[in-house]
Parts: sequence; C-alpha cells; structure tokens
Amino acid sequence: MAESAAFKAGLEGIVAGQSAVGEVTQRGLRYRGYDIADLAANTSFDEVAHLLLHGELPKKSELTNFRGRVRAAMALPDSVVSAIHAMPATIPPMDMLRSVASLLGHVDPEAQDNARAANLRKSERLLGQLAFALGVWAQKTTGVPAVAPDANKTHGANLLAMMLGKKDLPDFYGRVLDGTLILYAEHEFNASTFTARTIASTLSDMHSAISGAIGALKGPLHGGANEAAMKMFLDIGKPENVEKWYRDVQEHNKANPDNKKLIMGFGHRVYKNGDHRAAILREWSVQLSKMTGQGHWIEMADKLQELMLKEKNIHPNTDYPAAHAYYQLGIPIELYTPIFVCSRVTGWCAHVMEQQENNRIIRPLSEYIGPELRKVVPIAQR
Amino acid sequence: MAESAAFKAGLEGIVAGQSAVGEVTQRGLRYRGYDIADLAANTSFDEVAHLLLHGELPKKSELTNFRGRVRAAMALPDSVVSAIHAMPATIPPMDMLRSVASLLGHVDPEAQDNARAANLRKSERLLGQLAFALGVWAQKTTGVPAVAPDANKTHGANLLAMMLGKKDLPDFYGRVLDGTLILYAEHEFNASTFTARTIASTLSDMHSAISGAIGALKGPLHGGANEAAMKMFLDIGKPENVEKWYRDVQEHNKANPDNKKLIMGFGHRVYKNGDHRAAILREWSVQLSKMTGQGHWIEMADKLQELMLKEKNIHPNTDYPAAHAYYQLGIPIELYTPIFVCSRVTGWCAHVMEQQENNRIIRPLSEYIGPELRKVVPIAQR
Repeated sequence: MAESAAFKAGLEGIVAGQSAVGEVTQRGLRYRGYDIADLAANTSFDEVAHLLLHGELPKKSELTNFRGRVRAAMALPDSVVSAIHAMPATIPPMDMLRSVASLLGHVDPEAQDNARAANLRKSERLLGQLAFALGVWAQKTTGVPAVAPDANKTHGANLLAMMLGKKDLPDFYGRVLDGTLILYAEHEFNASTFTARTIASTLSDMHSAISGAIGALKGPLHGGANEAAMKMFLDIGKPENVEKWYRDVQEHNKANPDNKKLIMGFGHRVYKNGDHRAAILREWSVQLSKMTGQGHWIEMADKLQELMLKEKNIHPNTDYPAAHAYYQLGIPIELYTPIFVCSRVTGWCAHVMEQQENNRIIRPLSEYIGPELRKVVPIAQR
Repeated sequence: MAESAAFKAGLEGIVAGQSAVGEVTQRGLRYRGYDIADLAANTSFDEVAHLLLHGELPKKSELTNFRGRVRAAMALPDSVVSAIHAMPATIPPMDMLRSVASLLGHVDPEAQDNARAANLRKSERLLGQLAFALGVWAQKTTGVPAVAPDANKTHGANLLAMMLGKKDLPDFYGRVLDGTLILYAEHEFNASTFTARTIASTLSDMHSAISGAIGALKGPLHGGANEAAMKMFLDIGKPENVEKWYRDVQEHNKANPDNKKLIMGFGHRVYKNGDHRAAILREWSVQLSKMTGQGHWIEMADKLQELMLKEKNIHPNTDYPAAHAYYQLGIPIELYTPIFVCSRVTGWCAHVMEQQENNRIIRPLSEYIGPELRKVVPIAQR
C-alpha cells in the first residue's frame, strides 16, 4: 500500500500503459495512425476492423477474405441459440450479449489458447457472432424475420438488416450504421477496454475479457449514454420545448442538489473542445433526415447543444448524434448500446492481444481509509 | 496520450483509489481493521463475509440470520441449473462460474437496481448461489451425489460437502476449507477486484462486475496459481526429487531464456518478506496431514520453499499451501480456483458497493506508441 496518499480518482490523467492501437488527443482520434475523419470518409467498417485487428488496412483480396471469415462466423452454435431463446425477453440486451460472449467461450475450439494466431481467429469469430446474436435477439423480442447476411454488403449494412429484419433498406441507411461502427470502434484506455486489458493481464482468455468489457460498456456513464440521450430527446418532444426543458432541469437541480438530472451526451474525460466524431456523425444524421423527414431531432439537438455551450461550455460527444441517427434508422432504443458492442469488440480484441504480447499483470494499490487495528471479540461476547 | 511518458507497467505502485475494505501492507493483511491471523483463529468464514459485506462482525443473532439468508440462496433458478447441465463437461469450471454469474443476472429480480440495499441482497444471494453452482458442477462432472447444505454448518463445511458429495466429513476438514475461504476473501486492489470496480464505475450492475471479476481471477497469474502449484507438486512426485527437479528447471531456463518454466506459488507484488496467509494455511495443512497421512506434500513444499528462499530470496504465497491442503481434502484440482471465487465474491461485492457509493468512472490514459499520422490510400490503390 502506498507510502504516499496521493491518488487520482478514477485514475484521471494517469498513464496506465502503452498502446499502438488508438491515439486520443485534443486534436482528435486516430486508429493506428489514421485520422478518424479520413477513415470515416474513405473506408468501410470491415476495413477498419481489419486495421485494428491485423494492424494494416487490407488490400482488396485481404478484405474479401476477411469479410468471408467474418460472414462465415455470422451464425451461432446451436447451444448458444438455445440459450438466447431461453433468456427472458425483458432483460437488457447488453446482459444477453455479456452471457453470449461467455457461453461462446464454452464451445469455441480455441477458447483456452492465448497464442496470437488463435486470439486473432477468435476476434474475427466474435465480430461475426455478436452481430448475429443481436439479430437473433431482435427476432426473438420484436418478431422481425431472420435476414441472412449478404457477403457483398458491409458489416454495418448486414447488422442493420438483421436488427430490422429488412433486406432492401436504402444503401445510405447501411452506410450510416456502418459509419457509426467506424466511429465507435476504438478509444484507447476507456473503462471497457481497460477492463478487457486487466482481465487479459492475468493471462485469462479472450472470452473472459470480452464478456467483462461488455459488462463495463453497459453502464450509463459509458456505452449506455447513447440510449439515455435518445430518451432525453423523446422527453423534450419537439424543438420548441428545448429552452423551457433546459430551464426546468436547471431549476430542478438547484432545488435538488443531491438528486440532479443529467443532460445526456455531453462532455468527455479527454476531449475538452468537442468530440470530432460527433461532428462527423451529425452530418450523416442531417443527410439521413432528408430521407426520413425527421429533421426535428437534429433541430432539437442543435438547440440544446448551443445552450449547453453558451451556459456550461461543454460539447456533445458521439452518443449525442448517435441517438438521433439510430432513431431515424428505426432501431429500437435498447439496441443502441449493443450496436456499440458490435463495433468496439474490434478495439477490445486488439487491446487484449497487445496486452498479452507484452504483459504485466494490472494490479494497482489502494489507500486504506477504514478502521484502525481492532481485536476480534469472540462471538459469544459480541 | 499523456504530456509525460512516465507510466508504471501494470500500474505497479500506483494508488488507484481509497478503500475501507482491506489493507495490505508489509506487516500483513487486515479486513476492516482486523488482522487476518486474528480472523483465521477466532472466526468462521460466515462471520468474515458479514464483516466484509455489512462492515462489522455479526452478533450471534445477526450471524444466524445472515447464514439463514445465504443458505436460502443455496439453490439455483431452474433456468440456470438447465444451463449448467447444457454446458460441455470439459470446460474449465471457472468458465462455468463466469457464465452462471452472468445468467443469474437475467433472473435476479433486483439485477438492474444499484441501490445499496439491493446490492447487499444480491451479494448475499451470489455467495450462496456460486457455492451451490460449484456443487452442481461436481455432481455433473464427477458423479458425486447432491448433498443439501446444513444450516448448522459453516459455509466452508457446506461447500466441501457439496463438492465431494459427502455428508459426514470430519469437522476439521470443513474447518480447513472454511479457513481457506477466510484467507482468500479480500485483498484490496488485486486484478479481479480492480476489474469489478472498473465495471461498477460505469454504473453497470453487480452481476456484470462479478462475472468480469471471475474472468480475471481465472488467469494463471492470479487465482489460477493454486491449481498450477498442485500440478507442480505432482510433477515433482516425492520430497527426494525436489533438489534435482529444481536444478533441472534452472538448467532448462538457462537453455531456454524465452520459454522459462515458472515455479508456481511464489512471490507477490506487495508482500516482499512473505505472505502471512501462507504461514497460517501451512499449519492447517500440517495438522490435516496427521489425519490424511499425506505429510509428504508438506515435506516436499518445505524443501522447495527453503531452496527458493536461499537461491532466489522469494517466499511462497497463499496458493502454495492451498494446493497441498486442498489436495489432502480430496478436492479435484480444477475446483481450486473456483473455491477462491466462492470466497473472494465477498470482497468483490464489498468493493462494488464501495465504488458505487463514491463513484468516479475509472478511465486512465495510454501512451501512444504506434505509427505516425498516415493518409488512407483508397482500397483500389492499395
């Protein structure tokens, strides 16, 4: 335990290790050296997944092979399909994905093999399997028909088709969902990735790390924020209500300092001058609204964003436009955070492999603030 | 992305937060102010579990009620029993427990409630449920009969009876297993506890945190070490072989610097002058050997311990005597780390509650060591 009592709550500002996967700075986000805006404009998520897992953007033939392997994994062992059907339909789908990741470890032939090649193959399988599981869940809970993944479509277009049970969605819908997967794929030592690395640092296995990371992403302070943001937009109702809704929240918070309402989708531990991903995604959502006729969500979001900037000097993060983009695509709100899983699993797996290639067990210290030494009083005298 | 590149691999020596649950120092281990030796000598694990979860050692009536609640939870929902029976019998039982913890979250009526009172009730339920699950697993995989938990026996005695399928074991056997649960219950910010706290820090739920922690404990650098230590003892075979076995390992390691054999059960990130728990548990194992006639394991362990101290100046940790104590009790080796789960779940749950009562999301930074900025080359030109 520490000689010094100095500590940073939540490890804020503490460098916990080195990584070549992602770089988060005030100037923005890069995956293995590529700027997120460049990737968002010029690649598909399959290419980004290949970049994160294999280290380089794929050549055309590599992409075809990679897609083939991931599409082939877009199925689930019978035991896991049965397990999903046995789950109560009312649980949060994040709990379903957490269990599916754990159960997949029971039947993956390489589950206990931590060699890099085996970890890579498991990463590609998980990428296909978790997306497929979300499709099975949509079929079970919303009654949509099963849609088989199409080898010629992007991962995002396939995931959207499976979730909505629709084969012939406009290409741009698939492009937007695929684009959000690019934006969500990696973000260095966020809480879920750090969870995956801590689990992997004991030399435990890939499925343990991913199941744990899903549990961490579920929290409303992490991945759960995109769902919370959409519930907030629905609560506001229409653009004209923004000002009054905002004032009501401020009054409530003044009157209830111990039970404050949070305005969701704002602020970031690292980005203090705005989240570059949010601006990219807002643009896609604007284009989408020309097809869906739902521009009022963006109008509402922009009004609230302006107010928050003027009064609190904080910017929206990715979860903010993700909410209105996903809503326009017709995705049930409870699937927003699970979509995040289907993307971030690539970053998690890349970090697990990196951790185990140059491993040191992650074991910090705590500062003790409990009772001083006391003697056990035998139970008869307590 | 730090301004400074200074970081400590594995967060070694970094204070990651405050805690009133456990205190680890060179002078030993304390749970909420009580020395581990005092607890080991004068309490049962049920009392220690109450101490960790509720903050104080129980009065007699409180202990009776606490045991009643935990014993009542010593059962599993039908859906979870079916799920266990559907699992391949060849998986590591740690994978079974990881999935069981996740699946229990689907049916726990308070799974999504993070209020302290609900978290406490879930902690008590998990304590009973995970022990019972291990019993079900033993029945499934080794064919032992089901033994119902006895309200008058300690948690350890009940767990041992369930694992071995034997009702009338000597009291001292139950006492030793129960004692190991006391020693294993809590150890501040070890990798699995830190995993649980990181997951809880996103305001995710108890079952997510415990499932993730089980995945972390599984690793051979963490909980998996007690199984590895016993396999090493079996590999050595008999006390007379220790010296030659040790020299062979040294020679192998000189010849294979990239593929060294580890001598298991030694060393500790914090304790540099010996692990106090190891000495307590060695004594119990010595007493046990007078009943089992298996003193050769202790003779062997002592010889190796002496060599390691003389040549490497490192001491054994708890996993070292846990191995020969559990082996003498007749417990299958693959259940050693799962027993650790049945104990440490109390520490994990105490830390989850503490984290959420004074929360800040755990989100450190990484130092980027990947490629410099590069431009996406369109796929047609790659």
